[in-house]
Amino acid sequence: VLQAGPDGPEARIVVASTAVPGELCDVRTAARLALERRGASPAAAARISAATVPAGLTAAIEAGELFLEAARGAEQDSSGDARASAEAPLASPVDPPSYRDFMAFEQHVLRSHQLRNATVPEVYYELPVSYMGSVQAIIGPEATVPWPAYTERMDYELELGLVIGRPGRDLLPEQSLDHVLGLTVLNDFSARDIQRREMSGGLGPSKGKHFATAVGPHVVTLDELAIDDLPMTARVNGELWSEGNSGTIMWSLAELVAWASAGETLAAGSLLGSGTVGGGCGSELERRLAPGDAVELEIQGIGVLRNRLGQPSENGWAPAPRAPARS
Amino acid sequence: VLQAGPDGPEARIVVASTAVPGELCDVRTAARLALERRGASPAAAARISAATVPAGLTAAIEAGELFLEAARGAEQDSSGDARASAEAPLASPVDPPSYRDFMAFEQHVLRSHQLRNATVPEVYYELPVSYMGSVQAIIGPEATVPWPAYTERMDYELELGLVIGRPGRDLLPEQSLDHVLGLTVLNDFSARDIQRREMSGGLGPSKGKHFATAVGPHVVTLDELAIDDLPMTARVNGELWSEGNSGTIMWSLAELVAWASAGETLAAGSLLGSGTVGGGCGSELERRLAPGDAVELEIQGIGVLRNRLGQPSENGWAPAPRAPARS
Repeated sequence: VLQAGPDGPEARIVVASTAVPGELCDVRTAARLALERRGASPAAAARISAATVPAGLTAAIEAGELFLEAARGAEQDSSGDARASAEAPLASPVDPPSYRDFMAFEQHVLRSHQLRNATVPEVYYELPVSYMGSVQAIIGPEATVPWPAYTERMDYELELGLVIGRPGRDLLPEQSLDHVLGLTVLNDFSARDIQRREMSGGLGPSKGKHFATAVGPHVVTLDELAIDDLPMTARVNGELWSEGNSGTIMWSLAELVAWASAGETLAAGSLLGSGTVGGGCGSELERRLAPGDAVELEIQGIGVLRNRLGQPSENGWAPAPRAPARS
Repeated sequence: VLQAGPDGPEARIVVASTAVPGELCDVRTAARLALERRGASPAAAARISAATVPAGLTAAIEAGELFLEAARGAEQDSSGDARASAEAPLASPVDPPSYRDFMAFEQHVLRSHQLRNATVPEVYYELPVSYMGSVQAIIGPEATVPWPAYTERMDYELELGLVIGRPGRDLLPEQSLDHVLGLTVLNDFSARDIQRREMSGGLGPSKGKHFATAVGPHVVTLDELAIDDLPMTARVNGELWSEGNSGTIMWSLAELVAWASAGETLAAGSLLGSGTVGGGCGSELERRLAPGDAVELEIQGIGVLRNRLGQPSENGWAPAPRAPARS
């Protein structure tokens, strides 16, 4: 959440209290008070809790067990002294060092290709294919989605977001979920016109995706979720557009994480998108979004992620086409 | 460069001295001594210079003019008191928050498609297409390239690397080079077998690229370079494999930066690859790299970037193929 501070809004990590159901607890405040109870001076407690519980989730989980202990302590704090305001606006619950997005739901792959009379490339059945997105594009709940000048076909994508809690490399599927902190709701906003052109070149997509990826409202740890049976829905301006279920995925979440870690190190805080659940976007329904539309994605057990589309930008420079050389 | 410190190697930003040609000057040390000359106590000078000149380039240039002034001061420091050891090993000169790679040299596009009897998709002439790479994969000069278990066809790619010095959004080409700090040599190491499979799905490439991208040996500011006429060469184990020139690029560097900034904010420190110069990789020559090979990329006016390939990893889990649903 964002709390007002002397230098403007300050990001704070909060957890849902298990001691006082319905309340949020500020992890740094709880850690500070716990240190004072163990004999630290107020100044030392403030300094150490700020180092252990920094503003962003990635820096926090990079601290390993120390932060997780603080988060568990806050969850169980029954004093009420570290209560966080329920009115504070939510920021993105993640600030990932990398974001990659898979395309792991077969129904979405099939339908996307059927709609343009294209054959599904074999590789979709051989590997969980993915592309890297932009971490600068990550926005949180209620944030307005910037509408780039280069697109007229704006769409949402209803996805599971996986947050890596511990770094890993060359993980096996049976190990990989131990490296996942939890799940969130992910809306991989897509500019379909330019995305299609980019993908025809086999690279990216880039401009089709980099303007905004929404994440939130919070991260739910795996122990609280039946990850193979999560109902997923999308509503646009209150109207139900999409219904799906996490259980229809073609590759398990454990396999996605393991493959992402093959030959490369998955850093703590990294974000992985599952790809769009079957039926989980407008283009599968031959519908598109308009400026001002409100998109609400819900995954049962996680929550509702709501964002509104902005007005199209007027800053529309684009490069002039080139003439091919005579080769 | 990396300097020995009480907690292990410490990264330090150094500049080539203009006051004493051939010498390197440590920017933080020069800033610290300059502060002391202006009346700061040694402790305050150390604290302020550490905040102004942090260990990584991205955090440094995020400070804006303050860091650039410190760098210019170090360049012109003739005292010799801030001299950096010429023997200190080079780390990657960049630690980018994002890395995207274009494919902007027509000859490479043509040749890559000819070799597999494929037609060049029209989009390559309509837009500078790109994909986002992995910033976790960035390695520096002399670093060993990890060889993932999933590939048998390892290749190099000879590219220009552009480093963004000031954030920008919706830039026009005539403004965009003002946002570029300088150029470096970039080797976009590629696992050709899996890259080809990934690109057949229109996404990525991911595993074909994310194991290593080498950058270095340093960043040369634009004012020192004739960017439209830079000879580029690649040598493998001392043998000349590739020769090209930056002037053969189909989209100007200014257009690449402008397009990268369309509808999204290019953060300070971001890295952009030009794509492979014509003839600038083994696959165009129908050659491949072997474990232990030494690859040296040189761009005239920037320097030589040298890396050696490691031995193939034996951690080889890969997902099992899936059977398509009857649709």
